[in-house]
Amino acid sequence: MAKAQVIDALIQALGKEKVVTDPEDLICYSFDATADMPSKLPDVVVVPASTNEVVQIINIAREYKVPVYPRGSGTNLSGGTIPIQGGIVVSMQGMNKILEIDADNLVAVVQPGVVIQDLNNAVAPFGLIYPPDPGTVATATMGGSVSECSGGLRGLKYGVTKHYVMGLEVVLADGSVARFGGKTVKNVTAYDMVKLFTGAEGTLGIITEITVKLIPAPEARKSMLAIFNNLADAGNTVTEIVRSKVIPATMEIMDKVTIQTVENFAKVGLPTNAEALLLIEVDGIPEVVEREAAIVVKVVEKNKGKIQVAKDDKERDGLWAARRAALPALAQVKPTTVLEDATVPRSKITEMLVALQDIAKKYNLQIGTFGHAGDGNLHPTILTDARDTEEMERVHQAVDEIFKTALSLGGTISGEHGIGMAKAKYLPLEFGDSGMEAMRKVKQALDPDNLLNPGKMLN
Amino acid sequence: MAKAQVIDALIQALGKEKVVTDPEDLICYSFDATADMPSKLPDVVVVPASTNEVVQIINIAREYKVPVYPRGSGTNLSGGTIPIQGGIVVSMQGMNKILEIDADNLVAVVQPGVVIQDLNNAVAPFGLIYPPDPGTVATATMGGSVSECSGGLRGLKYGVTKHYVMGLEVVLADGSVARFGGKTVKNVTAYDMVKLFTGAEGTLGIITEITVKLIPAPEARKSMLAIFNNLADAGNTVTEIVRSKVIPATMEIMDKVTIQTVENFAKVGLPTNAEALLLIEVDGIPEVVEREAAIVVKVVEKNKGKIQVAKDDKERDGLWAARRAALPALAQVKPTTVLEDATVPRSKITEMLVALQDIAKKYNLQIGTFGHAGDGNLHPTILTDARDTEEMERVHQAVDEIFKTALSLGGTISGEHGIGMAKAKYLPLEFGDSGMEAMRKVKQALDPDNLLNPGKMLN
Repeated sequence: MAKAQVIDALIQALGKEKVVTDPEDLICYSFDATADMPSKLPDVVVVPASTNEVVQIINIAREYKVPVYPRGSGTNLSGGTIPIQGGIVVSMQGMNKILEIDADNLVAVVQPGVVIQDLNNAVAPFGLIYPPDPGTVATATMGGSVSECSGGLRGLKYGVTKHYVMGLEVVLADGSVARFGGKTVKNVTAYDMVKLFTGAEGTLGIITEITVKLIPAPEARKSMLAIFNNLADAGNTVTEIVRSKVIPATMEIMDKVTIQTVENFAKVGLPTNAEALLLIEVDGIPEVVEREAAIVVKVVEKNKGKIQVAKDDKERDGLWAARRAALPALAQVKPTTVLEDATVPRSKITEMLVALQDIAKKYNLQIGTFGHAGDGNLHPTILTDARDTEEMERVHQAVDEIFKTALSLGGTISGEHGIGMAKAKYLPLEFGDSGMEAMRKVKQALDPDNLLNPGKMLN
Repeated sequence: MAKAQVIDALIQALGKEKVVTDPEDLICYSFDATADMPSKLPDVVVVPASTNEVVQIINIAREYKVPVYPRGSGTNLSGGTIPIQGGIVVSMQGMNKILEIDADNLVAVVQPGVVIQDLNNAVAPFGLIYPPDPGTVATATMGGSVSECSGGLRGLKYGVTKHYVMGLEVVLADGSVARFGGKTVKNVTAYDMVKLFTGAEGTLGIITEITVKLIPAPEARKSMLAIFNNLADAGNTVTEIVRSKVIPATMEIMDKVTIQTVENFAKVGLPTNAEALLLIEVDGIPEVVEREAAIVVKVVEKNKGKIQVAKDDKERDGLWAARRAALPALAQVKPTTVLEDATVPRSKITEMLVALQDIAKKYNLQIGTFGHAGDGNLHPTILTDARDTEEMERVHQAVDEIFKTALSLGGTISGEHGIGMAKAKYLPLEFGDSGMEAMRKVKQALDPDNLLNPGKMLN
């Protein structure tokens, strides 16, 4: 039986201690952080310690034609790491060394298993930061985060993961090891393979080393809370702040459902009768911070918002605690939390927010919306129960409509969570036949036997 | 004869006025701005006015298996647009409309034939800029610039072309039209095909529409000239400025050969006995500019440099005139100017500068070096004469050694000029077999008949 042979071959190549076969252990690798997804036990989990061991795993997978599912911490939100066809899960958590911090060149070189926050802690003494900050920084790995091209709260000003990945070492589906990019700020040497593998969700190769750009940490910051009695006023404020040439580090929104749920859950003193909140932070050198904060205050007031400016770090932390509570608060209302990340051009935020309210009404669902308003990246969160088949039918219809609405506003079906299994069926809506075909050709060229993360993205 | 049939088919599809066959006219499309390259007459030049016309051209090329060479203004510096196998040159200069300036979303949508400077002029009234600024902004097109992923003087702080391309419409080698990306700041929907086509030098598809990111124009700026008696002091200054957490908009270097040639040519008052100059500009809001300029002055003086701060725009323009004169000044010394763009990590600038001096001595060549020191992106410029076969042999050996040195310092063979024909043979040095093979598979998948810009990059 192939399964036993594969396990034997893996044990022979890597040693028993790096090969996990105990059913109870395998369960932990059968799902990820995505709701409303099937789970599936892998045949085996391997925890390689080197690029060479990854090569050996790929070669065994090729020989036995067994699917390979690379995995970091499994925090992704699109079913990206579920081993839906069984086979081998390759846990990259064993390759977790920070290989180099090169402060003069503003880069760090890491293995894929390094946790994002650990990298940030390591570069902090140099006065540097690695800006991408998905909600899961404390658990997500760099490899997973690069494979998913994570976004986060600072996308508007600082960009997302792909803007920071400068070089990659990748084990390809044919078992060869390739290196692309490096430490230079400028590099136009042939195709931008670094960006092709970034966000490819492990379907084109397994990332075994990452060179990332770092930036000087901002010296000062100021957080502000703006309260609105009207969704449109909040949406217009977002657009007008950017129009005033202020690019805040973060500009987060919460709608009424979210505000009430957070307040109910965390008792942080949010105004439960408000229609929307914006949480805005500007950062930089102190002079810039003062100046930009003053402009934000003016724009908020002009748009009939009430504004509170955090006086110190304690008040700031209070405001951010409320924002961080959004998802956990919503998640405890009902057993199942379907969290989406359809994204629209920033100027369409108001239209999208209104459309989401309409969709909630139409399908008689509870939807709380929060997210990165400055990026047009909203997280409509449907509070439901996977066991309620009838309601889930309405949930799926609502999700369809959310994606179609985002696309009709010039947006995209995924701003930061990726495609995985969760959004694969919506891809043709965005790309049409020719775009799908072009991407399939790339996948087919680099992974002709469909060994890498099969059943995801393009299927 | 296929050539006559192809021309007939093109005339029938696009009309006579868009099809150029006059031999004198064809000559203009037989070369580009790269020195030391063969030229080749195309069979025909077509000037499409729409995406649909580009599709028709591709379909005719497919039918007759004729090479297709997309071209903007032909200002590239790696032989990227030379129709080395004859066939059809597709001049994108007829598609030169700015389709939309969307100031609220900080984006513009343009056709590929738009000249970079024209886009900047059009967005200026909104207080916005499109930052990538290759030396040829006044003539280069957006399509060419995206295809080559142009760099320029502001790469250190603002990044290069790929950091600004958000969406593309592309006509593929199979004649289909695909659209990738768009106006959203965040987009992780499947593969990053936008970045794959950016810098692909027209070998994977023909770009017919481009959505780019804009940013608020900096309010203030300050230019400074730093004079050094020692190359290492200049190199160390570059590293130490960044280490001080100041990221200048530009940080340009000129070596002694360049300084003396520029002064001889332009009489701008440069100190001809200096070993190196740095031209540094900081920008941002006035408070930031003052503060960063003060840090720059301190670092320069600590490294034994003499510094002059431009007091007003007139003095600033004088400094930049000297920098802009570098290439034309060097180019008039000898009939042939071989301009390279090997790039190293910023901290290796001094080593690279010293190596370049050694290479000049070893091969008895005149090499002037200037370039984007902050990016580690130097332009060693060999002053020679293509008719002198013996000297050209030494030039080629020196170029080989320049690339090998850059790679040994952890750099890349092209920071901003691309590969084209000029650097194709050096690619395996950087990527090895497996990297080359992976890129060839992508090319083969998207252009199986090798119709698009054949004879370039991967050949």
